[in-house]
Amino acid sequence: MQATSIEWTEIEKTIARKAFDKAYARETSALIEEISSQAGAIKQLEQIWNLHDYLSARRHEIDGKYDYRYSMLVFVFARLVQEGWLQLEELEGLATDKLKKIAALSRM
Amino acid sequence: MQATSIEWTEIEKTIARKAFDKAYARETSALIEEISSQAGAIKQLEQIWNLHDYLSARRHEIDGKYDYRYSMLVFVFARLVQEGWLQLEELEGLATDKLKKIAALSRM
Repeated sequence: MQATSIEWTEIEKTIARKAFDKAYARETSALIEEISSQAGAIKQLEQIWNLHDYLSARRHEIDGKYDYRYSMLVFVFARLVQEGWLQLEELEGLATDKLKKIAALSRM
Repeated sequence: MQATSIEWTEIEKTIARKAFDKAYARETSALIEEISSQAGAIKQLEQIWNLHDYLSARRHEIDGKYDYRYSMLVFVFARLVQEGWLQLEELEGLATDKLKKIAALSRM
């Protein structure tokens, strides 16, 4: 990782924050919808414990993934693009080297 | 705890198993109903994490409470009576000393 990639201008910070929050809102909205419909269909105890296991895993994953440290953001965005929570176009305005790295990492 | 309380006749074992299973079925059915209706009303991420916390606590509590060891059953039944998952009458047929202990402990 070159030094340029961890330097963020004020404009880049604004773009990054907006994209980050957007991805988070999308992923958590999808989770809310999923749980709300899954849970309505619960008829057995085993399904309750499965729901609990699933929530434990998702919580852990989401807590770890949304790491807003400037030194981590390139990796965070690459993962969010890879998983479909963010489009590369939504990061337009970031320095070209960052965008290239995000694009390359997201295809790995 | 006197030795008599941890000796269970075959008839007592049958009564105990039936009562134990009945209480478990009642408590877990109530949990299923509760989660199913709670989860349908989920609109925010915070509610998801609250649900997760609640399930963690209930799972831990239920796992610990339903301990079918003959040395523990008097305490288990006392707690189930205290919490309303079992009626004392449903334990009729157990030795009088056990019933007395269960009744006394359930009022503590």
